[in-house]
Amino acid sequence: MLVCAEEVHKALQRFSGRIHKTPVITCESIDKIAGCKVFMKCEHLQKTGSFKARGALNAVQKLKDEENALGVVTHSSGNHGQGLAWAAAQAELPCRVAVPKNAPPSKMDAMKGYGALLELCEPTIKTALPLNFICIFREDTCNRLAKELGYCTIEPFDNQDVICGQGTLGAEIIEQVPEADAIFVAIGGGGLASGVAAYVSEVRPDIKVFLVEPEGKRLSEYLRNGEITKDKDALDTIADGIRVLKVGENCYPILKRTSSDKVITVSDQEIREALKLLWTRTKQRVEPSAAVPLAGLLKVSPAELGLKKVVLILCGGNVDINFIP
Amino acid sequence: MLVCAEEVHKALQRFSGRIHKTPVITCESIDKIAGCKVFMKCEHLQKTGSFKARGALNAVQKLKDEENALGVVTHSSGNHGQGLAWAAAQAELPCRVAVPKNAPPSKMDAMKGYGALLELCEPTIKTALPLNFICIFREDTCNRLAKELGYCTIEPFDNQDVICGQGTLGAEIIEQVPEADAIFVAIGGGGLASGVAAYVSEVRPDIKVFLVEPEGKRLSEYLRNGEITKDKDALDTIADGIRVLKVGENCYPILKRTSSDKVITVSDQEIREALKLLWTRTKQRVEPSAAVPLAGLLKVSPAELGLKKVVLILCGGNVDINFIP
Repeated sequence: MLVCAEEVHKALQRFSGRIHKTPVITCESIDKIAGCKVFMKCEHLQKTGSFKARGALNAVQKLKDEENALGVVTHSSGNHGQGLAWAAAQAELPCRVAVPKNAPPSKMDAMKGYGALLELCEPTIKTALPLNFICIFREDTCNRLAKELGYCTIEPFDNQDVICGQGTLGAEIIEQVPEADAIFVAIGGGGLASGVAAYVSEVRPDIKVFLVEPEGKRLSEYLRNGEITKDKDALDTIADGIRVLKVGENCYPILKRTSSDKVITVSDQEIREALKLLWTRTKQRVEPSAAVPLAGLLKVSPAELGLKKVVLILCGGNVDINFIP
Repeated sequence: MLVCAEEVHKALQRFSGRIHKTPVITCESIDKIAGCKVFMKCEHLQKTGSFKARGALNAVQKLKDEENALGVVTHSSGNHGQGLAWAAAQAELPCRVAVPKNAPPSKMDAMKGYGALLELCEPTIKTALPLNFICIFREDTCNRLAKELGYCTIEPFDNQDVICGQGTLGAEIIEQVPEADAIFVAIGGGGLASGVAAYVSEVRPDIKVFLVEPEGKRLSEYLRNGEITKDKDALDTIADGIRVLKVGENCYPILKRTSSDKVITVSDQEIREALKLLWTRTKQRVEPSAAVPLAGLLKVSPAELGLKKVVLILCGGNVDINFIP
């Protein structure tokens, strides 16, 4: 199987009405600030509060239909865990999630609310342990569960069915905003970005896909020479949904082919400012990662890039009630 | 002129496309918590971030069309000032607003952004001065401006054109949710509540209009006997949009006729809990006053009241960036 438009269309069929076709909103005051017409695709209004429900449901339903799976397992402290827990409930498969002990209680409650069983593992204590050690710890718990129970592991981004599920966002954007010149997407592990870029480059190659990264990721360099200065696994950014440093092995070739020359880097301060704009102007309570595309758009000159109509993906809205940008 | 459906329809024509027909949203998890189907009318997505744009535009445009007004003036530290400033710009009339010096800078900037000139007056210092004194102070500034400039004063709620403008919300709700059993609305000065109640009781008397008030207002008592224990002018509630204690003289008879037996009282804590639900479940960053109707619904038993489908008016979304429920 490859990531391609045909597989994305199959994912849309597999959803069979269980995924929202989320609305696209506009806001005159943001248009004025950005200097172009801005369309915002509202994945914070998706089931589970983020786009992760798409990839998770595609992967889980396919496993159920084609491989007679016993259950699914993953490791997550965030949106993928919620997405997978929800998707498993939709497909009527049991779900386990390895969760760091210090994950926000609200996220744990959401996973449990969808019926997943949680397996608490050691938290990430940056000051006490190197990050590599912790990542192995979470993954070890996940692998052990998969082995013991005979469940299938669903990785958060480096899984082709997950990528095709996220690609359905590209299909909806093309349908809802056919006049778009470009799509701006935040990049973490690359599942969303590569799904959208693969679909759009095949079906509407005239629409450019820009990748917006937090400082320190150095994605341009990585896409150019395939090498990454890997002194750590995670970025220290306010955009908690995209803290992972490397992009997935299945995502890499897609992004290299479609968007090597379209990477924009933004600072935490720029993300905060974009988030304030979204909260105050659109009244949408999105999470920090969802403000990353707007931060990227505000950093470039749309006119110089020939962009008149731009789509931003607001990727999620799962933010702690006490968080202030 | 009276507040009636005919005048509300005239207001809709007067808007001529400058007011959003705001969307109605639903949320499965809120339905479950409330125990009935909940429809939320999104006036936080209205021009200027609240329903106040409706009443203000109706009043200002009518003055412009029928009375050849020179300009408009009001006193406000909040949404009415923004609504009037915007409406005056739409009707191409000058606008002045008497604003307490300690009003939030974001609200002052918004008014100035719409082109209004601000006249700063003494702030409300609860600890230093009796509230009566301050209210006269703000109104004095407003009256002085009106006299000096020959402008018309547009009161925030006790003006029949403003009330008819707010009544357009009733017309839209009936069109968008014809199957509704009831509408829940927060009550402050009564402009919104009486506009909606007057329209709905005339056109669809089968739909009940419930008034949700903050603790201390004692609206039931007031509507019953016309007397109010007036030891102060303002309520101390988190719902800053509805701090005014008395309802307007033009609003009173409408509310007494339509909703005397449908008043629900909620505490600040109940408003906070409802606001948290709205923020986390719907991802809509509404202001505290907008959570008052949900707080009211959660306080009653929809089944006992025979309510299966309820509309809540989310009245605004102008909330400080640092506010936490």
